[in-house]
Amino acid sequence: MSDRGTHTYASLHVGPAGGPRDEVVAIEEPMEVRVNGSPFAVIMRTPGADRDLAAGFLLAEDVVHGVHEIGLIEHCQDADQEGRDNVINVTVTGAAVDRLESRLAGRRQVMMTASCGLCGRRTIESLRSRVSSVAGDWTVPASVIASLPSTLRRAQRVFETTGGLHAAGLFDLDGTLLLAAEDVGRHNAVDKITGRMLLERKLPLSRAMLQVSGRTSFELVQKALLAGIPLIASVSAPSSLAIDLATDSGITLCGFVRGATFNVYAHPERVG
Amino acid sequence: MSDRGTHTYASLHVGPAGGPRDEVVAIEEPMEVRVNGSPFAVIMRTPGADRDLAAGFLLAEDVVHGVHEIGLIEHCQDADQEGRDNVINVTVTGAAVDRLESRLAGRRQVMMTASCGLCGRRTIESLRSRVSSVAGDWTVPASVIASLPSTLRRAQRVFETTGGLHAAGLFDLDGTLLLAAEDVGRHNAVDKITGRMLLERKLPLSRAMLQVSGRTSFELVQKALLAGIPLIASVSAPSSLAIDLATDSGITLCGFVRGATFNVYAHPERVG
Repeated sequence: MSDRGTHTYASLHVGPAGGPRDEVVAIEEPMEVRVNGSPFAVIMRTPGADRDLAAGFLLAEDVVHGVHEIGLIEHCQDADQEGRDNVINVTVTGAAVDRLESRLAGRRQVMMTASCGLCGRRTIESLRSRVSSVAGDWTVPASVIASLPSTLRRAQRVFETTGGLHAAGLFDLDGTLLLAAEDVGRHNAVDKITGRMLLERKLPLSRAMLQVSGRTSFELVQKALLAGIPLIASVSAPSSLAIDLATDSGITLCGFVRGATFNVYAHPERVG
Repeated sequence: MSDRGTHTYASLHVGPAGGPRDEVVAIEEPMEVRVNGSPFAVIMRTPGADRDLAAGFLLAEDVVHGVHEIGLIEHCQDADQEGRDNVINVTVTGAAVDRLESRLAGRRQVMMTASCGLCGRRTIESLRSRVSSVAGDWTVPASVIASLPSTLRRAQRVFETTGGLHAAGLFDLDGTLLLAAEDVGRHNAVDKITGRMLLERKLPLSRAMLQVSGRTSFELVQKALLAGIPLIASVSAPSSLAIDLATDSGITLCGFVRGATFNVYAHPERVG
């Protein structure tokens, strides 16, 4: 990943030992997702795990509900297409075709934007009608949750160098890292995780935990919910709507996981 | 702002001095932006400076080019509308009406999403045709740039309490804070700044500097460019496309501003 994930730029370092200095920078490039031949979305992302990202994105966007609805998912093969490494072609089948049409039609009305894949309250209700809550009747020791950030950091090769990438890690209940993903966007890092698991037919992830490197927003909890992950932990703060959705959907939400301490904002019964 | 910007949640603190603990959490709520009567976008944001956010968002989305194209911008006045604090009505006039139509039509083709307001390379080109580069023939001492993060942090009342908000600050060339904004989304924090300045008829901001609390992405540089801000500084890393756009558009881009040191990734001639 680091080959495509970073690029070296000339910079000027200012300070006591200042001067010209090469800096390793995380690559950000647009990736176009085409579904059944039509442009569906352009995602600014760090190249790598593009197929996973496209799959996770379409899961989060409520276009696909399972891998059985995905036919093909691959980079553009057209030799004449400039920048084809930044184009992913996806074919969807069955009920996903109707959902795709419905999403494209809905867009004429309301654009969901920025940190918002979907609109707040309406979405909480529509999600609850589809995924009432996550399953996961287990507990995990506090010490395992406390260990997640350092395990994830050790796995982050690119972040160490650039400081510019968000990370997400999927862990089993012993705190073993199952999969890590990095991206300039923290939403993308989570989509890369859920997308890979979707493609490997491993959803719902009812015996797994998700650790993220940044703040926990509504949208990140939503992505975990759609993948059936019962516990999310972060080194930073959750938002109010993230807590509300976690509470409503049975997800354990941990924040400020630093050293041996953290806060549990929703469903603490899994910690102990 | 802190009245509407935070909410207290019951949480369980885990650790040596563990137990139930109230935590102050940053509020995240959807805000619907209606333009000329039609829903245009739903933005997940921290309530406060909503009019500024809507104005800055429409500037960044290339719907409005100046305040002369904005008629009315206010919260929904309909007493029967539930959640009307989360609805902003905007009327646009003149050429902005055509741009609005064009954006709504374009959406049927491609959704710009997540960290991407607009698509990479195509956007760099289309922006350059409109804003070829920023004006700003001045220099600023390195010590002034080094002072921006601490000045901004002192102004961040909510962040101190919740740890959950991104901040953006607009500074004059002496390092005096002109305006600060906070939000769960760092794009929103910048839109709140540029939007306020747009409404106050202060664009282009050719003698100002922008400090942001998170990573610098392509989209943040784009927002600065549209507001005519010649210098962006961040405590963290820029992405590759952020550097490319800053280089192309004459913007000085500083990263890792920590203590007395920082890196300049583009146009260092303004530092010295």
